[in-house]
Amino acid sequence: MNDNAPLFRQVTIIGVGLIGGSIGMAIKKHRLAHEVVGMSQHHASLVHALKHHAIDKAFNDVKKAVQNADLVVLSTPVNTIMSLLPSISRFLKRGCIVTDVGSTKVSIVETAEKLFNSAYFVGSHPMAGSDKKGSVYAIPDLFNHSLCIMTPTERTNKAAEEKVKIFWTRLGANVKVLSPMEHDKILAYISHLPHLIAYALIGMIPQEYLEYSAQGLKDTTRIAASSPQMWNDICMANSKNIIKSLDEMVKSLSVLRKQIVTRDEQNLVENFKKAKTKRDGLNPTPPAEKSNDET
Amino acid sequence: MNDNAPLFRQVTIIGVGLIGGSIGMAIKKHRLAHEVVGMSQHHASLVHALKHHAIDKAFNDVKKAVQNADLVVLSTPVNTIMSLLPSISRFLKRGCIVTDVGSTKVSIVETAEKLFNSAYFVGSHPMAGSDKKGSVYAIPDLFNHSLCIMTPTERTNKAAEEKVKIFWTRLGANVKVLSPMEHDKILAYISHLPHLIAYALIGMIPQEYLEYSAQGLKDTTRIAASSPQMWNDICMANSKNIIKSLDEMVKSLSVLRKQIVTRDEQNLVENFKKAKTKRDGLNPTPPAEKSNDET
Repeated sequence: MNDNAPLFRQVTIIGVGLIGGSIGMAIKKHRLAHEVVGMSQHHASLVHALKHHAIDKAFNDVKKAVQNADLVVLSTPVNTIMSLLPSISRFLKRGCIVTDVGSTKVSIVETAEKLFNSAYFVGSHPMAGSDKKGSVYAIPDLFNHSLCIMTPTERTNKAAEEKVKIFWTRLGANVKVLSPMEHDKILAYISHLPHLIAYALIGMIPQEYLEYSAQGLKDTTRIAASSPQMWNDICMANSKNIIKSLDEMVKSLSVLRKQIVTRDEQNLVENFKKAKTKRDGLNPTPPAEKSNDET
Repeated sequence: MNDNAPLFRQVTIIGVGLIGGSIGMAIKKHRLAHEVVGMSQHHASLVHALKHHAIDKAFNDVKKAVQNADLVVLSTPVNTIMSLLPSISRFLKRGCIVTDVGSTKVSIVETAEKLFNSAYFVGSHPMAGSDKKGSVYAIPDLFNHSLCIMTPTERTNKAAEEKVKIFWTRLGANVKVLSPMEHDKILAYISHLPHLIAYALIGMIPQEYLEYSAQGLKDTTRIAASSPQMWNDICMANSKNIIKSLDEMVKSLSVLRKQIVTRDEQNLVENFKKAKTKRDGLNPTPPAEKSNDET
């Protein structure tokens, strides 16, 4: 395939906020489609996306938005993706590829595979984003050096999977493949649990103590600035894995608690050392990705 | 007082790592002393501090280092400060002011007040630092826009307290005053607990999941790269407050857990919203302070 040829004639992005707007800008920057169509229920978002060249055309009607699309990208929170799947499925043309950006994958992929007949669904989770939301934060380089997890199953059309992989790769992402179940299990630990912890931590600190906070607390709780509704939905969609990771976290805290109470300094230092080694091993983030985070 | 006049003839800094080295550089930059003396058991640190003009003279002998000092700054981890107090107390000249940078204050202040007769102790906790340690990371602007908590008691000499306050202020810090007990209670929540959580979180995530981590996890666990020995010492010195904050954190997590299990979305969203409001209210950090954190 010619690396410079557009991958798709028409790409339709449903939801033109931070992620959807950035996808539109990146598609246009890298010339991956002849035409980018945006759909949103928020008029202001569409106006902003048009003005900032994230999309070429705007619709607030599902049928009009998707009926000619070769690729549809569902760029909304998990619950909205779930409710969009049946409504778009009636209007997709044969061979249309649909992917999404949802933070959980099992329920989305299962639902899409039941609904779609002549269109191809390929689950995706681009792990770029921010605690900020909205189209005003969209940037064309959001996916540069980011990770995108794709979650094909044995029912996924191989050609569609390959095309979606090329799509994310040309948007700058490093693509990894997991099953939907593996994805939801791993994300519970590396993303959903940290968000719950950040919310719980800042939530339990007395307000009057916060004037003494420094960078450590700010970093540890940065993701508690994320959207409450979106994280509620993720907790509901991935509750089983999240509860399991939460229980293990509490167990992990109780081990440290016991070591402090019994003044078992040898094992406390040992635990801190093991944790530090793991933290030191996390790849440093390239500067361009610095403000990104997974959702 | 003339703002440009040196505050002290001789300042002795014991421990010339990240904090001590930065104090030396800042003293010299702002001309707060005629002479800066450094003391360390680590020959390489002294050589580095001399070479980078953090200190003018170097000693590895306590008596020589402190006997002519007008201000002594104990810039070591808590446990070393505790063992330095009796050894320096014999050699201080009458009227010498001693302060420290320890991350916990009750045990240090109590011990110093028992030991010192003709010298004046004023507890300090400059909340600047990094997960990095060592003199190579020292910079003269480490305290710019940072917070320094001073912990005087009714036994603290008022003139000495005032002079230490001017000292930190001229180093660029914003000084706040707390009692040693208040300090240790508040710091348990805003600094010690977040460190424990960061260690526990990265510690409990299976190693093979870490390749999927993004910025959220990196930020949440950044401070788990901090010194294991130092954090062990802090846990030991402030165990009672830390255990209390840890128990409240676990309670806070169990509230979220219950809301997820019972699918109580209304209260879950409400909790996330309250947490987000608190997090949004944390003052943004000036760029210069970006890599700093409390210890």
